[in-house]
Amino acid sequence: AGLPVFRSADGVFTYKPRGRILVDVSSTMGSKYGGRNTTTTGMRALRLGLEGGVGPHFFYQFESDFSENEVDIVTAFLGYRNKISSKVDYDVRAGHLFNDRAFEGSTGSDSTPFLERGVVSTAIIPQRGFYGIGIMGRMFGPNWHASLSVTGDRVDGEQATNDSRTFSGRAHWNPIRTDRSLLHVGGWFFDEALSSAATTLTRSTVIGGRFNGAVRVTTGELLGGRSTTGYGAELGGYVGGLWVMGEAGRRIARLDGGRPSFESKAWSLSSGLFLTGELPPYNPRLGSFGQPNVLDPVLDGGLGAIELTARYENLDYTDLVLGGDGWAATLGVNWYLNSFTRIQLNGIQWHTNNRAGTYTGGDDGQTVSARVGVTF
Amino acid sequence: AGLPVFRSADGVFTYKPRGRILVDVSSTMGSKYGGRNTTTTGMRALRLGLEGGVGPHFFYQFESDFSENEVDIVTAFLGYRNKISSKVDYDVRAGHLFNDRAFEGSTGSDSTPFLERGVVSTAIIPQRGFYGIGIMGRMFGPNWHASLSVTGDRVDGEQATNDSRTFSGRAHWNPIRTDRSLLHVGGWFFDEALSSAATTLTRSTVIGGRFNGAVRVTTGELLGGRSTTGYGAELGGYVGGLWVMGEAGRRIARLDGGRPSFESKAWSLSSGLFLTGELPPYNPRLGSFGQPNVLDPVLDGGLGAIELTARYENLDYTDLVLGGDGWAATLGVNWYLNSFTRIQLNGIQWHTNNRAGTYTGGDDGQTVSARVGVTF
Amino acid sequence: AGLPVFRSADGVFTYKPRGRILVDVSSTMGSKYGGRNTTTTGMRALRLGLEGGVGPHFFYQFESDFSENEVDIVTAFLGYRNKISSKVDYDVRAGHLFNDRAFEGSTGSDSTPFLERGVVSTAIIPQRGFYGIGIMGRMFGPNWHASLSVTGDRVDGEQATNDSRTFSGRAHWNPIRTDRSLLHVGGWFFDEALSSAATTLTRSTVIGGRFNGAVRVTTGELLGGRSTTGYGAELGGYVGGLWVMGEAGRRIARLDGGRPSFESKAWSLSSGLFLTGELPPYNPRLGSFGQPNVLDPVLDGGLGAIELTARYENLDYTDLVLGGDGWAATLGVNWYLNSFTRIQLNGIQWHTNNRAGTYTGGDDGQTVSARVGVTF
Repeated sequence: AGLPVFRSADGVFTYKPRGRILVDVSSTMGSKYGGRNTTTTGMRALRLGLEGGVGPHFFYQFESDFSENEVDIVTAFLGYRNKISSKVDYDVRAGHLFNDRAFEGSTGSDSTPFLERGVVSTAIIPQRGFYGIGIMGRMFGPNWHASLSVTGDRVDGEQATNDSRTFSGRAHWNPIRTDRSLLHVGGWFFDEALSSAATTLTRSTVIGGRFNGAVRVTTGELLGGRSTTGYGAELGGYVGGLWVMGEAGRRIARLDGGRPSFESKAWSLSSGLFLTGELPPYNPRLGSFGQPNVLDPVLDGGLGAIELTARYENLDYTDLVLGGDGWAATLGVNWYLNSFTRIQLNGIQWHTNNRAGTYTGGDDGQTVSARVGVTF
Repeated sequence: AGLPVFRSADGVFTYKPRGRILVDVSSTMGSKYGGRNTTTTGMRALRLGLEGGVGPHFFYQFESDFSENEVDIVTAFLGYRNKISSKVDYDVRAGHLFNDRAFEGSTGSDSTPFLERGVVSTAIIPQRGFYGIGIMGRMFGPNWHASLSVTGDRVDGEQATNDSRTFSGRAHWNPIRTDRSLLHVGGWFFDEALSSAATTLTRSTVIGGRFNGAVRVTTGELLGGRSTTGYGAELGGYVGGLWVMGEAGRRIARLDGGRPSFESKAWSLSSGLFLTGELPPYNPRLGSFGQPNVLDPVLDGGLGAIELTARYENLDYTDLVLGGDGWAATLGVNWYLNSFTRIQLNGIQWHTNNRAGTYTGGDDGQTVSARVGVTF
Repeated sequence: AGLPVFRSADGVFTYKPRGRILVDVSSTMGSKYGGRNTTTTGMRALRLGLEGGVGPHFFYQFESDFSENEVDIVTAFLGYRNKISSKVDYDVRAGHLFNDRAFEGSTGSDSTPFLERGVVSTAIIPQRGFYGIGIMGRMFGPNWHASLSVTGDRVDGEQATNDSRTFSGRAHWNPIRTDRSLLHVGGWFFDEALSSAATTLTRSTVIGGRFNGAVRVTTGELLGGRSTTGYGAELGGYVGGLWVMGEAGRRIARLDGGRPSFESKAWSLSSGLFLTGELPPYNPRLGSFGQPNVLDPVLDGGLGAIELTARYENLDYTDLVLGGDGWAATLGVNWYLNSFTRIQLNGIQWHTNNRAGTYTGGDDGQTVSARVGVTF
């Protein structure tokens, strides 16, 4: 965001450091299990990387995350971009690629309106997670985009077994777009053939914020997966500073031994309101949120931007005998000091009903989380 | 140090890469245990990061260490700074913070006068180590500073259990400060409530330099800690190129099961003399050492700066039945090629008397260590 | 390569970011073992670092690799360079150093003509691998260079046992060198005293490309090593766009318990032809390959450079009762979009005959690998 872009003397090469620091603290109370009523600190993201271009067509990006005191390669790709017409352009990227999947799932961790993405984005996902090595093509129009990708596993040191293979795509369209309002319609899918080395489908999805790892909705142990298919829909938009976004997704996991498929279901409804006159930071090229254009930054002696947020989300793994379900309702305030520095506060009322693991049966609690973050 | 600072076109953003490379070799002889008479190489620090500012008030820093061929996040914070009056200013920083604790403990690894910090800094320390996620406020006057912080665990991937909580502070004062002389008085403390997931207090502290991991003073196994409190004092100063620093510290570890508390005791006396006319690199703002202002750098055809150093340090864990004690006497030479490139040589005569572990009983030996280092 | 070099205002300091992204996909068929017929993706290299200088004589470099989703420190050193005469200069570097060993072994991973180095470079190697902490001196003349180094272990967190010690050297000479042709003669050796903590000499060397970890030539378990000595020869050159390089190496591993020494043998013959008029990217200073000077880059609307390659390589561990052998024949095409962006395709016919491990007996197969890569 704020960092200068460096250019070589002949202007052909550009280079820009990238990074983000997101510091969180999270405290939970009210659970009937003492092991869930904890207070933890953590880094939601600690990223360092760079992006650059060579001439008008070639570009690359490389970023690693250190937030759990170990390395996690995130984006690392080379790309080629070009125009098809004055209104339509495309790019093709090869490398370690971030899924184009769901509205919050396609929004960067430094731009999500809540401290953690909703359950559609965290649960209706390929088994390999948010990233895979492969190739993605994207096409962009004035009020739409579409992407298709084929990827193997995420980057790892394992070269003695087959990769899984994921085919996925997403598209969005803005049928209405004026200066101060917009309608967003989106859809996405993925289809994943699991390698014989990756047949475990057990899943425990956090629902009280990322920094309470004990508050999860769990499937119980689930072995013998053969393939998964997921899909989802996005419908939302904004009028002035008020935005609404509904998301729903479903994932079918096919199992071996003639067992019936396992269907995961998730949905969420989110909303936000900028009190300080900004429009929601909707990026019409990618169909996701970016960082807001703060009208009166604290740096210039202003107030910054203030946004109130609310979300309800619901996750259902009960298609399995040992699968649980749960929901969370979140109220939040975001204070943007400028377009890339923010302070966020979320209060979450959550409910889980697990049938496996340590924390079974109906359980409710409250989690309060705060973040300070900078993107550079 | 030497790297350029980049500024955005409007001057609002600044950005500077940071790093250090410290290469060590260490050889030990004279121990009655063959396993201690080893020769090893290692990187004392291999750091890469950046620091930057946004306008006059906001700043951030992010640095990771790769010295053991894995990632260790070191500093990673966002901060805000401002003036209270023409003489007093303050800052508040949130993120992964380095303890403000003890004189050598507050000095960066690229600025310590000896290859390894003394035992006051390495043994009288919170259980979570040199870093924790939290918030620190610091206030600076013309000849003093004070800091207070509250922190949880250091950055990690563990979010299923409570963090420990550390409250700590330090202050220093320079009652005398002239052009060529200075008196330093300092004090510090920490108070740590241990999480139920962090009750192991076993400690093995190196005393023959960092790169002989077999030469340690050990407590023996110590489980069931509830909390720790530590405090210490610093008294020193310089006249011309000669500096002296005395440090002492004590740590009380409270144990469960009605056992008496365990008290660790450490002290050290250090001195150095610049033969080439430089003043000691005392930083009056932070009350610690920085890098010397070399009068005649090798780069300009000069001799660089030469400093002779000496230290005695003593560590006592004998308050425990299985706790050991030990001391080390170090003679050293530092050759600063310029303000950020140095070659260091230390000869250490050490003594340990452990009552647990592999190397029990009185044992003496000699360790010779050398370092070449650059900070950029 | 393409990135700008930053200079401080007084011109004394220079600084340049460095990195490479190499994305691979590999597919194997034809083996009689299903576990070898796999398709995998991976990053051959994911590097980020920087290099810099202070004045004319001092320089440093620091680079880490993230290609297996964990950190691997690669080069990290400080150096001093100077001239002896108008024609001869030298440098001395201390830190984590890359072996100067074999022609392909001395060529960077972003410059190898094939996707993976040949077996001389991957099998005739010190037990500690491609890197060690220590000191290396190099001398350079107009048509030759020579290096000597003493190193301990590679960078690690292990400081409780002795390092191994490796003494090694390499030299090359160009007896013929005209505008469009060159003869290369080279030789190298290493001698390694193994620490008592590093006596395992078991080795499994990939021969069907790096990203099929199941296609290896194995020694079987080999414990009780005392020391190793390796040496090799390089003979090759180019006429116009056609280059040829022959390499051979041998490694003697001395074992304890009065057992006879174990001799590993490897050789390879490689060739390449630039169809687009470029000369082979031979670096006469280091005696290795660098990146080609593309005459008509794709960036400028050109075709780029196209190179056809072929290699035969042979590896023999049969001096051991349980040791195997194998060979591989590779045909390839490299398309250089510009001097630092490349697309590579290799087809490998391989044969292994192992006497230990999962895949024993004669086995043949075909591996097809592709890469897109950028160096910056």
